[in-house]
Amino acid sequence: MWNLTWRTGSDQYGDSVPNSMYRHMWSNSPKECFEFGDYTFDEHFGRAIPSYTPRPVMRDYIITRAVKADLKKYIKFNIKVVNVTFDNNTFSVTTWDKINDSFSTEEFDFVVVASGHLSFPYVPEYPGMDTFPGRIIHSHDFRNAEQFSGQDLIVIGSSYSAEDIAIQCYKYGAKSITIVYRQNPIGFKWPSTVKEMSLDRLEGNMAYFKDGNSQKVDSIILCTGYLRHFPFLEENLRLKTENTDCCPDLYKGVVWKKNHKLFYLGMQNQYYTITLFDTQAWFVRDVILGTFCLPSERDIQKEIDTFRLKADKLSSPSEQIDYHTDYMKDIFKLVDCPKFNIDQVNQQLKVWEHHRKENILTYRDKSFTSVITGTRGTPHHTDWLHAFDDSIMGFLAEP
Amino acid sequence: MWNLTWRTGSDQYGDSVPNSMYRHMWSNSPKECFEFGDYTFDEHFGRAIPSYTPRPVMRDYIITRAVKADLKKYIKFNIKVVNVTFDNNTFSVTTWDKINDSFSTEEFDFVVVASGHLSFPYVPEYPGMDTFPGRIIHSHDFRNAEQFSGQDLIVIGSSYSAEDIAIQCYKYGAKSITIVYRQNPIGFKWPSTVKEMSLDRLEGNMAYFKDGNSQKVDSIILCTGYLRHFPFLEENLRLKTENTDCCPDLYKGVVWKKNHKLFYLGMQNQYYTITLFDTQAWFVRDVILGTFCLPSERDIQKEIDTFRLKADKLSSPSEQIDYHTDYMKDIFKLVDCPKFNIDQVNQQLKVWEHHRKENILTYRDKSFTSVITGTRGTPHHTDWLHAFDDSIMGFLAEP
Repeated sequence: MWNLTWRTGSDQYGDSVPNSMYRHMWSNSPKECFEFGDYTFDEHFGRAIPSYTPRPVMRDYIITRAVKADLKKYIKFNIKVVNVTFDNNTFSVTTWDKINDSFSTEEFDFVVVASGHLSFPYVPEYPGMDTFPGRIIHSHDFRNAEQFSGQDLIVIGSSYSAEDIAIQCYKYGAKSITIVYRQNPIGFKWPSTVKEMSLDRLEGNMAYFKDGNSQKVDSIILCTGYLRHFPFLEENLRLKTENTDCCPDLYKGVVWKKNHKLFYLGMQNQYYTITLFDTQAWFVRDVILGTFCLPSERDIQKEIDTFRLKADKLSSPSEQIDYHTDYMKDIFKLVDCPKFNIDQVNQQLKVWEHHRKENILTYRDKSFTSVITGTRGTPHHTDWLHAFDDSIMGFLAEP
Repeated sequence: MWNLTWRTGSDQYGDSVPNSMYRHMWSNSPKECFEFGDYTFDEHFGRAIPSYTPRPVMRDYIITRAVKADLKKYIKFNIKVVNVTFDNNTFSVTTWDKINDSFSTEEFDFVVVASGHLSFPYVPEYPGMDTFPGRIIHSHDFRNAEQFSGQDLIVIGSSYSAEDIAIQCYKYGAKSITIVYRQNPIGFKWPSTVKEMSLDRLEGNMAYFKDGNSQKVDSIILCTGYLRHFPFLEENLRLKTENTDCCPDLYKGVVWKKNHKLFYLGMQNQYYTITLFDTQAWFVRDVILGTFCLPSERDIQKEIDTFRLKADKLSSPSEQIDYHTDYMKDIFKLVDCPKFNIDQVNQQLKVWEHHRKENILTYRDKSFTSVITGTRGTPHHTDWLHAFDDSIMGFLAEP
């Protein structure tokens, strides 16, 4: 996810491009909320750094941990899984070698689906889009806010993508940004060139809003989320779910209820992101090794039902954060993965949530404290809104 | 192919968008070179019209012929073929119902692959693209030249897409257009804001050319062609070919050498386009019905070899036109499809080719004569360069 590519659509082999990363992306939560228990930012950088980091810094941190564990030799690159079937208690996995354009099928005892849920955009149509002469893209294909400098933009959506792409485009000089919501506005205190509206329709290059106002539009960016889409699995192995805090049919959020040899990682809404994936992976390992014994079907169903009941009642980010903290704690109890003080992270997530509401343009200038090393994030030499050098060198440079 | 959609990348179901059409596309050859023998433009429009027509006019003509034949009832929409296998002399075709997200498999005696070869872009990388902050798209995702008004553009490619997108962007107000070639420039007489260069590299938003010049670039449009890509066929049924006048492994250009129950339509380079597809379809029908008996494997291979040998020697558009005319004549002899005077079309194609070279900005203002009705294309009320109303109404309006 933290890889940047200029490619969109399909790659040089005709395969769809999974990347949804943009050049000037910074993490939208403090690093102290997703620090690996066994590989701290202090260890990686050899010094304290700011709490919010640009894309190349994040990628460097994540990749280096993998490099240290010498994982590359286990990974096949440019090999795409095109079909997975299950028969005679075994998975048949067919892969496409994209470079040599050849196929092969191998058998496996277990399959872990860790392909994420940010690769297949959900792209709805709004009235009049077919008459719009300007550019329409999904956030999946958004690569660089500079391309929208000087433009009048519509950003459709009410969640993290809409919020971040709106302020990215503001930072990089869009003339105006109108965030379009369906049910409720995000409600942040936006700068004067950013507003939130409910869209009635487009007609040519004009947007007409439900309050009767209208405006010329150059480009539309759909921040309408992603599909959980697994075209490489045969139908009876596919998780079917919307964006949710608790996925149906997954015991402990990872074990496929209908086949205990199939696992899904990171399919739920996320506050803990990379530490969540890590903890889930640890648990999956234990199920595969048999060091964790799954309960009866009845107990599995009962537990899924309990979590879903709780999840259905969540009505605020704060409650969601508590829910996901409880979920993490539940897995933590079962595995011997690198632990950290999760209640402390929970508290920091709530502070983070508050910062965003307080001022979406300055929340990335705040500092948090590592729950592992106790190191406090240093102030960045330039506040986020004016920091245009996103390179590792530029970020780590002395002021 | 003549359907316009604002969508690019993947659709609302997560499926890749096959369309490569842009709003202001006009046919790039005269309608007198691809008129159906059994449904003339005179019959469709009830009067003479210009030789070159905008997209909606083309689509209307093609669709109406299908509507008159009452074909809609045979077509399943929003059903995608995801897998085709061959076993026990039978094809198993698995389809995905995109709206209901369900799958089903049916058996068939014959399969005709008519999915075209303009849906999977070939997207090569040029040095420095990863540093370029502007927009990079393939012509597959090009929807509207108006989006590039006022911009400095690079158009990469040397064939029809590059030529047409360059002049589209010129027509709709691009500030400058630099067509980048690999081997040889197209060599047309371009207007002053259009030039052809060989690209050395990009560095940020600057392009450096092999002659030592450089220039700021806002957007890059890759007109680098398409892949023959059939991810829905199992490997042993897949045609593997590049862009070519004569596809390997296809007898009469359509019958899959390795399995005579599998057919491909329109896989070669095209001068005859829709009349070619029609003629091929007629022949395929006859093979399926058994009214045409295939020769021995040896004779099939011999004939493929003969055609390929001829195709390999073609060195000019004129020779290519003759080659494809001979190919059409060869099929014409075998089937009772609606015929037309193909030598007369051949001559007109050569005149068309000459017009393009003479002046790429005015060739669409020329008129040709129908080889079926003898009707001469009328002059359009506005020359192409200044005709901005592409609608059917606007096109057919009196001057």
